[in-house]
Amino acid sequence: MRIMVLGGDGYLGWPTAMHFSSRGHEVAVVDDFTRRRCHLQQGSDSLTPIAALPDRIDAWHDLTASTIESFVLDICDYPALERAIAAFRPEAIIHYGEIPSAPWSMIDRDHAVGTQVNNVVGTLNLLWAMKDIVPDAHLVKLGTMGEYGTPNIDIEEGYITIEHKGRTDTLPFPKLPGSFYHLSKVHDSHNIHFACRVWGLRATDLNQGVVYGIHTPETEIDERLLTRFDYDESFGTALNRFCVQAVIGHPLTVYGQGTQRRAFLNIRDTLQCVELATLNPADAGEMRVFNQFTESFSVAELATTVQEAAHRVGYECDIAYLTNPRFEKEEHHYRPVNDNLLGLGLTPTFLSDDLVESTLHAVERYKDRVTLRSIDPRITWK
Amino acid sequence: MRIMVLGGDGYLGWPTAMHFSSRGHEVAVVDDFTRRRCHLQQGSDSLTPIAALPDRIDAWHDLTASTIESFVLDICDYPALERAIAAFRPEAIIHYGEIPSAPWSMIDRDHAVGTQVNNVVGTLNLLWAMKDIVPDAHLVKLGTMGEYGTPNIDIEEGYITIEHKGRTDTLPFPKLPGSFYHLSKVHDSHNIHFACRVWGLRATDLNQGVVYGIHTPETEIDERLLTRFDYDESFGTALNRFCVQAVIGHPLTVYGQGTQRRAFLNIRDTLQCVELATLNPADAGEMRVFNQFTESFSVAELATTVQEAAHRVGYECDIAYLTNPRFEKEEHHYRPVNDNLLGLGLTPTFLSDDLVESTLHAVERYKDRVTLRSIDPRITWK
Repeated sequence: MRIMVLGGDGYLGWPTAMHFSSRGHEVAVVDDFTRRRCHLQQGSDSLTPIAALPDRIDAWHDLTASTIESFVLDICDYPALERAIAAFRPEAIIHYGEIPSAPWSMIDRDHAVGTQVNNVVGTLNLLWAMKDIVPDAHLVKLGTMGEYGTPNIDIEEGYITIEHKGRTDTLPFPKLPGSFYHLSKVHDSHNIHFACRVWGLRATDLNQGVVYGIHTPETEIDERLLTRFDYDESFGTALNRFCVQAVIGHPLTVYGQGTQRRAFLNIRDTLQCVELATLNPADAGEMRVFNQFTESFSVAELATTVQEAAHRVGYECDIAYLTNPRFEKEEHHYRPVNDNLLGLGLTPTFLSDDLVESTLHAVERYKDRVTLRSIDPRITWK
Repeated sequence: MRIMVLGGDGYLGWPTAMHFSSRGHEVAVVDDFTRRRCHLQQGSDSLTPIAALPDRIDAWHDLTASTIESFVLDICDYPALERAIAAFRPEAIIHYGEIPSAPWSMIDRDHAVGTQVNNVVGTLNLLWAMKDIVPDAHLVKLGTMGEYGTPNIDIEEGYITIEHKGRTDTLPFPKLPGSFYHLSKVHDSHNIHFACRVWGLRATDLNQGVVYGIHTPETEIDERLLTRFDYDESFGTALNRFCVQAVIGHPLTVYGQGTQRRAFLNIRDTLQCVELATLNPADAGEMRVFNQFTESFSVAELATTVQEAAHRVGYECDIAYLTNPRFEKEEHHYRPVNDNLLGLGLTPTFLSDDLVESTLHAVERYKDRVTLRSIDPRITWK
């Protein structure tokens, strides 16, 4: 299959590109290095030393004899995106090409507007280019479980059947996103749903939980194939950030009481889910929604898990319960459904003590690269 | 009260400015003439000859001794918007400042992206400026009934209480918008809801039906105070367009079977509703939603009403049932609720034969200004 990965230089995009390439698919990555530029702006960097995109691609070719094509362009630049899609003619487009940080989007007006315009316009451009050039291609779009927020009812997969005043309809699940970033994904979902209804495009919206993990089978082959691993307040997600904090002796930064629950999955399961969605495309005119996660934890549970694993491998660390910089409920109902991907054959990699310990060991190897400046939360929602 | 009207040069914005000014409020209008430029681009124009903004304002002053302040700026230009809000310090901001056309947004990628960026960024800018400068001001935002689409359940006012698997929550009403323009308003609604929740702003989202009518008490005072009246395929809404077609002997252009039902209101009731919302502000942290319409009709019923009224005043016209250029259900349930504004005291001006006849007479006066080129629908959703 011809598979185009937007955001193919990123934490998930690069491993996804290698994953499909290793299985014999023709793969192209599209990126304009927005993510690397965000880190330059805030003075942070990946824990892992990541190669430049052409060097990664060359290393992949040297090691596997497989070719990953690349298009260096901003998907907000429509003529450039059109040319790339016309040249590669993808059958599936895996769309990670968005700015993925809630705190980043809350810094100030510029970051809020920048995040929404970048994400919404990139996706709109993609929809128009698909309609005009590859109307039968399948869009596999990364959304987030954060689109739903924490309603007081169980979270279904994208749609909910509502009985109201004696009538019934199945409608988009109501959304309570918690940042301008999460809002941008809600906007995308509405735009994609419309494009499927009106133009008959096919799409799968993957509402992904918080991803953790440093390695996939392909990143372990050679250091030149490493993917990025962030631990700063903007782009570092809970478990990954806790592992770095544990290794460098920084208290684990839990926001508020840490009783807020979230859905999580291992980076290896991201690849599994994206592959399942890609190999089982949506119907023409359909926007399927899959909730992409394997288990849920409270943030405090996660911190305790890391603290205990760290103790076993020789690191003592405290947990710091900080004033919550975010606007979020700390006590809430949380029971999201994830039947669709399990139904397609997802075999979850649950979070185990072994897995946390091996992540701590992997982090150890790069601990000299840690910069402290962007770990503590300074960005607030108020 | 100090009231700022964004889009204060438009069809509804200008009469709204005069309405509040005539009642002794301090009024400022903000506009960058986007709407006038859209008409220049498509070679269409208002049926009514409208004065330039400074001339309107001078005429209003000459006739009433009241002053309307003006800020000529694009609300997507954040520093300019900030300066205006800091200078005027509004207590209420009535936000009509968006591109309001579904067909316009469907022309091509540029118009789709242009509409969404213009509308979403303008509103985001406004939310940030309110938070920073006038956090206690009340945002009265014009949304549209088209945000809901035509679900198979009754349409509530912005929120719906859902009982699901033994639990209950009141959540944003699911949206099925039918164009990139309608989607922009859905995005706005989500962004505003978030800003109210997180920052404690106060907002009223008015989901307005299709507005008809040529005059308000203030526009009738003097020809220099006329508001615009559009009949082209992009900006001319059903009843207004039908009246112009009847007078010039053009068949009334009904899309499809015309059985699609929509909610309507008279322009005088728009002013009444906006005034009721403004004088009864939302609480801090609250985004109220009012469905702003007075009655609903099918498009075919409306065309027949105009055809019969035209016959009585001496015009014979046909109804042309055209292939529907839009993507919309023609047979559907439609029972929207509008209790909130009625509860605040709205006295509806229902559509009467008299009212259609008087609109036809008002149109007659300007019929020599009609250009045919933009009446027939050429923009399609496919």
